[in-house]
Amino acid sequence: MTIQLHCFGESGNAYKAALALQFSGLDWEPVYVDFFNGATRARDYRDTLNNMGEVPVMVDGPVKLTQSGVIQQYVSEQSGKFGGTTPEDAREVMRWMFWDNHKLSSQAGMTRFLMNFLPEAKRPSEVIAFAQGRLKAAYDVLNTHLEGRDWIVGDSPTNADLSCCGYLYYPEPFGFIRGDWPHIDAWLTRLSQQPGWKHPYDLMPGSPADRV
Amino acid sequence: MTIQLHCFGESGNAYKAALALQFSGLDWEPVYVDFFNGATRARDYRDTLNNMGEVPVMVDGPVKLTQSGVIQQYVSEQSGKFGGTTPEDAREVMRWMFWDNHKLSSQAGMTRFLMNFLPEAKRPSEVIAFAQGRLKAAYDVLNTHLEGRDWIVGDSPTNADLSCCGYLYYPEPFGFIRGDWPHIDAWLTRLSQQPGWKHPYDLMPGSPADRV
Repeated sequence: MTIQLHCFGESGNAYKAALALQFSGLDWEPVYVDFFNGATRARDYRDTLNNMGEVPVMVDGPVKLTQSGVIQQYVSEQSGKFGGTTPEDAREVMRWMFWDNHKLSSQAGMTRFLMNFLPEAKRPSEVIAFAQGRLKAAYDVLNTHLEGRDWIVGDSPTNADLSCCGYLYYPEPFGFIRGDWPHIDAWLTRLSQQPGWKHPYDLMPGSPADRV
Repeated sequence: MTIQLHCFGESGNAYKAALALQFSGLDWEPVYVDFFNGATRARDYRDTLNNMGEVPVMVDGPVKLTQSGVIQQYVSEQSGKFGGTTPEDAREVMRWMFWDNHKLSSQAGMTRFLMNFLPEAKRPSEVIAFAQGRLKAAYDVLNTHLEGRDWIVGDSPTNADLSCCGYLYYPEPFGFIRGDWPHIDAWLTRLSQQPGWKHPYDLMPGSPADRV
């Protein structure tokens, strides 16, 4: 049975799950969610797919999961990959996934949305500046951690990497400049050189180019 | 060996871990972190306790863990409690923990900080209003889910409840009014009636009263 991932190209949270599926070798396909025309806000989507009104949603036969972190863990259970190779590493992987959800992707996704997908007149400049300040603190934590390391945990890619990279390959400006964070920059390059890696707009359907 | 939890009363993220320890029956004690005088920003704190510069940090002999969600999971492993009783429930518990970290506690903690612990002249009103709007959407998701349910997952308290309640018992105003969300209100009352429950300022050292 082919695993289905309800997603759209612009969602870095969906990208985390899509990239885990892509690297895992499991059989999967994306199902396009028309977020920008309100698909995730529709009653039917909330009732049948996700009462949190978000992507990604993964459907594997009778198993339906939401939240990128939970889907990533499921992919690890099914494939034996990306979860860390010792109990200590498994906890360290979870630690970075929670941190990413709390401090990095949540802020990055919101800031990118506000700066690129809202009409210019509606962009809240004080909110954007504030979020960018918080994000700098998060980039600094990640950049410092990656100094002298190839991967966030252990010596191969884990869900920690697949979570933290969620919004960092996108081309739309949101205040993240790779060159300012050399260890993040090298790590993103390293991850993009793994077999099967694809850019979010190549891995999932939908991109800003469709709406021009 | 007594488990130590580095924490302070004002931190709802620390409260999640403290409440899990408190309900678990494990032997634990809080260790005060003087956050408001910069303890978590100090070099030594980052080098020896948490390179993310945050509370809570749990130390159990040789095991040192950070991120409330990871500590909650560890408490579940040690005590057999709060993790969900089936694999499906375990995933559903994790789903709400990730959602809480992404959408609820992260925003609530920040908004409460800005509205109560910053000098009045420095409070960014546009940021506060924006975050309160996002929080309303989160309260709505949780309130709707709790309609007809005693607990977020299954029929007893889990880490989903202990995560989502993190900032919701605090007295400082940040836009959350219990009466506006009747199912959240009833659930918070229900949780506070569990044996051993304590208010954050009673469970952990430090509170705004100390700084008056």
